[in-house]
Amino acid sequence: MGGDFGPHCIVPACVDSLADSPLLRLILVGQHDILEQLVAQYPRLDRTRLLIRPAADIVAMDARPAQVLRGSADSSMRQALELVRRGEAQACVSAGNTGALMALSRHVLKTLPGIDRPAMVTAVPTAAGSCLLLDLGANIDCSAENLYQFAVMGAVAAEALGVVRPRVALLNVGTEAIKGNQQVKLAASLLLQARELNYVGFVEGDGLYRGEADVVVCDGFVGNIVLKASEGLASMIAARVAAQFAAGPLSRLVGLLALPLLRRLQGELRPARHNGASFLGLQGIVVKSHGAAGPEGFRSAIRRALTEVDENLPQRLHGRLEHLLL
Amino acid sequence: MGGDFGPHCIVPACVDSLADSPLLRLILVGQHDILEQLVAQYPRLDRTRLLIRPAADIVAMDARPAQVLRGSADSSMRQALELVRRGEAQACVSAGNTGALMALSRHVLKTLPGIDRPAMVTAVPTAAGSCLLLDLGANIDCSAENLYQFAVMGAVAAEALGVVRPRVALLNVGTEAIKGNQQVKLAASLLLQARELNYVGFVEGDGLYRGEADVVVCDGFVGNIVLKASEGLASMIAARVAAQFAAGPLSRLVGLLALPLLRRLQGELRPARHNGASFLGLQGIVVKSHGAAGPEGFRSAIRRALTEVDENLPQRLHGRLEHLLL
Repeated sequence: MGGDFGPHCIVPACVDSLADSPLLRLILVGQHDILEQLVAQYPRLDRTRLLIRPAADIVAMDARPAQVLRGSADSSMRQALELVRRGEAQACVSAGNTGALMALSRHVLKTLPGIDRPAMVTAVPTAAGSCLLLDLGANIDCSAENLYQFAVMGAVAAEALGVVRPRVALLNVGTEAIKGNQQVKLAASLLLQARELNYVGFVEGDGLYRGEADVVVCDGFVGNIVLKASEGLASMIAARVAAQFAAGPLSRLVGLLALPLLRRLQGELRPARHNGASFLGLQGIVVKSHGAAGPEGFRSAIRRALTEVDENLPQRLHGRLEHLLL
Repeated sequence: MGGDFGPHCIVPACVDSLADSPLLRLILVGQHDILEQLVAQYPRLDRTRLLIRPAADIVAMDARPAQVLRGSADSSMRQALELVRRGEAQACVSAGNTGALMALSRHVLKTLPGIDRPAMVTAVPTAAGSCLLLDLGANIDCSAENLYQFAVMGAVAAEALGVVRPRVALLNVGTEAIKGNQQVKLAASLLLQARELNYVGFVEGDGLYRGEADVVVCDGFVGNIVLKASEGLASMIAARVAAQFAAGPLSRLVGLLALPLLRRLQGELRPARHNGASFLGLQGIVVKSHGAAGPEGFRSAIRRALTEVDENLPQRLHGRLEHLLL
């Protein structure tokens, strides 16, 4: 029921996802009549693969996490997470209120042993391919231990995506050991002791996009601001290029030719909007689709959840954490 | 003597700057023989406008600030700042070690009354024009009071650049009052009491580039990472566009036509590299040119210093601070 467009975006995304993946089955959790009406628009759909689980209430997009925890047990968000907890679903995908989803996920699913706080992660495009950036805003203030745990979780997630010996780095204002705040310096000393991790040191903001690491770790305050600033900058560049290309007849011709390229680039440079973000460190799979994502974005988020199911990511994390956590 | 290219970049930049501004006079501070040799390559230069002040030592690019404070009194950086302190120069421009320049500037010039720590500021391009972003890395950990002082200094600097009632914002992970870390929330409550400031609330990373404010305030850890990530992203986009345009004969043609535009854009999107950054809050004008800047970048930094001299920025700040500081 969540996100800027609610089920009007989510139902078409589900229909497309079912066509993408023949073994996929989806459960829509939310207000029955609205969902039924939208699903009925696809009469040839195999309804055994798209079930509706009624839930009367909706978590408001501006509700505070504490409020949501105290609130209705029959919200669609909570009911979807309960399905995962009971093993009736293998993953939960939501476009709803991020803070509420994180709070409810922790409450319902619990964190993995040894993990104090789950992190939000997404794949960011780099000059070399892509890298996992975490945390993206779930944890505003982080201790060195939190950052260390994010690094471990990010490394295991990167391995699950096929990266061999992922290079793990801390985002910082310089690459020398004396640079940064106390938490980052302490996290570096913890990571230097973790022999099983391929810790490569600090990267700066530009190093992130140069692809100097496969996993880049920071607190949620920095990660959220960097990711959103990057989205804003990419949009601004695209708009500026488009405006320049519209300036004269020759420019317009060039612009027409360049437009598809620029559109593709803009999509790539909005990773969170395009791909959603995963919550790492829970006893279950939860993927957050961007509130402003259209059907294509929500479909990507479902695909991401499917990959994590295929890789059995929480189980894999659990197995590795025993060796990697201090 | 500082920066990646030292006087080989700085001397040509000075020669061009003298041609730009007929009233400008420059003093080169550093190792006499090297400077003399480089200046001698311009025999038609009016040498009364380009003096050389010998200084035997150089602050190493990797020297720690504490080391530099204890170190040689005859470094070019210190001698240049002493000229400003004694009124023999009206501004100091350096491409040297940023941390050392900040530490020596505070030591030699002192901060303005009421300012605990100077901040680094630069103009960042936005969809609406540009905005001043501070701090860029001079202050890693900041209290709410520091952020408040940065906001006041940024507002006065924006006024000096001609912005009427500059909109001042705090960079945060959301726009609601409950969002952010303790320092940001406290700084917001201080700014809400400052009636003389046009405080517009929180902006997110994307709001920065949408131009939602004229002055955007954050701690130096966040500011440094956002600025460098933006530079890295802009470079990556430019490289990716260039690569795409090189992919086929038609694309190559389009690319050739689009190249000047992309180059210009890339220059604009590297504000620190292109324009340098000012230190705000000192009893004197200090501009830091990017270490990797070429002659064009150093020339921009000189131009920036000249604007601040014309606007008498430290004096102006001093006058306004009495009313604006708590």
